Amino acid sequence: MKISIDAMGGDNAPHEIVKGVYEALQAFDDIEIQLYGDEQKLAPLVTAHERLQVIHTDEIIEGTDEPVRAIRRKKNSSLVKMAEAVKNGESDACVSAGNTGALMAAGLFIVGRIDQVDRPALAPTLPTLDGKGFVMLDLGANSDAKPEHLEQFAVMGSVYAEKVRGIANPRVGLLNIGTEEIKGNELTKAAFELLKHAPINFIGNVESRDLLTGVADVVVTDGFTGNMVLKTLEGTASGIFTLLKEAFNTSTKTKISALLVKDQLRGLKNKLDYSEYGGAGLFGLKAPVIKAHGSSNANAIFHAIRQARTMVEYDVCGIIQSTLRKELSND
Amino acid sequence: MKISIDAMGGDNAPHEIVKGVYEALQAFDDIEIQLYGDEQKLAPLVTAHERLQVIHTDEIIEGTDEPVRAIRRKKNSSLVKMAEAVKNGESDACVSAGNTGALMAAGLFIVGRIDQVDRPALAPTLPTLDGKGFVMLDLGANSDAKPEHLEQFAVMGSVYAEKVRGIANPRVGLLNIGTEEIKGNELTKAAFELLKHAPINFIGNVESRDLLTGVADVVVTDGFTGNMVLKTLEGTASGIFTLLKEAFNTSTKTKISALLVKDQLRGLKNKLDYSEYGGAGLFGLKAPVIKAHGSSNANAIFHAIRQARTMVEYDVCGIIQSTLRKELSND
Repeated sequence: MKISIDAMGGDNAPHEIVKGVYEALQAFDDIEIQLYGDEQKLAPLVTAHERLQVIHTDEIIEGTDEPVRAIRRKKNSSLVKMAEAVKNGESDACVSAGNTGALMAAGLFIVGRIDQVDRPALAPTLPTLDGKGFVMLDLGANSDAKPEHLEQFAVMGSVYAEKVRGIANPRVGLLNIGTEEIKGNELTKAAFELLKHAPINFIGNVESRDLLTGVADVVVTDGFTGNMVLKTLEGTASGIFTLLKEAFNTSTKTKISALLVKDQLRGLKNKLDYSEYGGAGLFGLKAPVIKAHGSSNANAIFHAIRQARTMVEYDVCGIIQSTLRKELSND
Repeated sequence: MKISIDAMGGDNAPHEIVKGVYEALQAFDDIEIQLYGDEQKLAPLVTAHERLQVIHTDEIIEGTDEPVRAIRRKKNSSLVKMAEAVKNGESDACVSAGNTGALMAAGLFIVGRIDQVDRPALAPTLPTLDGKGFVMLDLGANSDAKPEHLEQFAVMGSVYAEKVRGIANPRVGLLNIGTEEIKGNELTKAAFELLKHAPINFIGNVESRDLLTGVADVVVTDGFTGNMVLKTLEGTASGIFTLLKEAFNTSTKTKISALLVKDQLRGLKNKLDYSEYGGAGLFGLKAPVIKAHGSSNANAIFHAIRQARTMVEYDVCGIIQSTLRKELSND
């Protein structure tokens, strides 16, 4: 299979991207990589490989670019070219650590939506305390959602959890402000009714306070709430780590304490680092489009490529499509 | 001034409630307390005090009771009687650590709404890393909100921050998924326009990842999002503390480490404990109604009474009413 990669996206592009690509080429002998980027910058990093092709692009979409305008105007950017390769059937999936909005726009306008999905969803795997993680969607591809969108998210997340994450009969929960069926706003109440009859293992409402303890394998929410919850998680963790640092810096005694527990604290931080779980899939498109974290290192890029490969291998996009088609014909 | 208290609400009722009442009576000689509860249970805890009156009630609203039904059926409960005292003008404010939903229902149906407010809002003060805290509303009094509700929340929060928390010209932020004006869902985009012209110091959109660093003095959001963010904060903090405990319990070395830093860790936990900031005000009612945390100890009850007292002293409900009346006549 062929996977196209944006070599110029993300904080550590292109060197960490290229390193990640070589790790993936070594680990998987069934993949061919098309690497899109500035030849001059890539030349010192790239050595010939029979399954690697470098395609020169001379534009870069920056993190600050307005997404839709960027993909319309920067036609020769690594991100746009990578997506076009998928559209033209030259590639089976694509991965970028660049501008999230631009990648979502490229996914929607270049790769294209599955007919049965009204809105694509951004779906990262987030950490749990036991290290298993859970898929959450939508994390912000769209700000407003209708109940039927949440139903589509649920099906997409469930197929992904089963095929890519290897979870049999994944538990799908609806993120809500209480566990009782009557709880929630108009959106979640209406979505609850739809989810009860969807072809998934729906376990009912789940609360955001229970996410880290692994209350569900797939958590469904609208993009506004999902983004809000993700940023609250990040902000709280970062705030507590700031306070911890201060606590350990108080005196000689606390500094010694820090030395004695430093390995465990690093382990703790790694547990909450979701780049370990790969990138965020943009679900609902005709082919796998993976958003790797902006600060991705080679290891994160490797995992994102692995994830794209598994999605192609198990035809996740095809199964999502056929599941939703069947569901719609039953309605 | 007179403050009525529900002696039977909360996990530590009635003993911690009564202890908190005595602390308040000692600290403030301008308050009289009406304590509603079971005389038999209160008798061993109460000693005569010239500014304390015990009023017997023989029903209790439990945490599991359905809120609206509970206040309709348990007419002789401490919570209902306490609210009726406010309605009848026998008391100026009330405090309960009991069933949040029932207290909100009692506030709405017994104490009553200010005409200018469509929906009351639950407004706790949440912790920041610097210990100053911020007021956030609505944290779940209503699940769905319209843009004009968020405008009313903003005015109420701003008046409270200024009068009760003593913050001159408080910075009011709209909770959103990005700081740019164009970001958000339909609700926040429409609310942004209203807030720009409201009689407050509106600083624009704020993100949930910046709440703990004190990005605003008042943060406005709908009840669904607010409740979601609060529970994410709680869940993340609790999850990290679980991991920390495990980290410190790994070996003899880490156990020694824990001993060396234990005072600082306790300080850290206290910083994130929002019961220190008093209870959550239910804003938009004709008189102050304060929800103390369900697990309130005497100190938390003392702070909730102090808060009710300050709201009465500075006529916060009256100022909210006159500010909104003026704002509405300007529209």
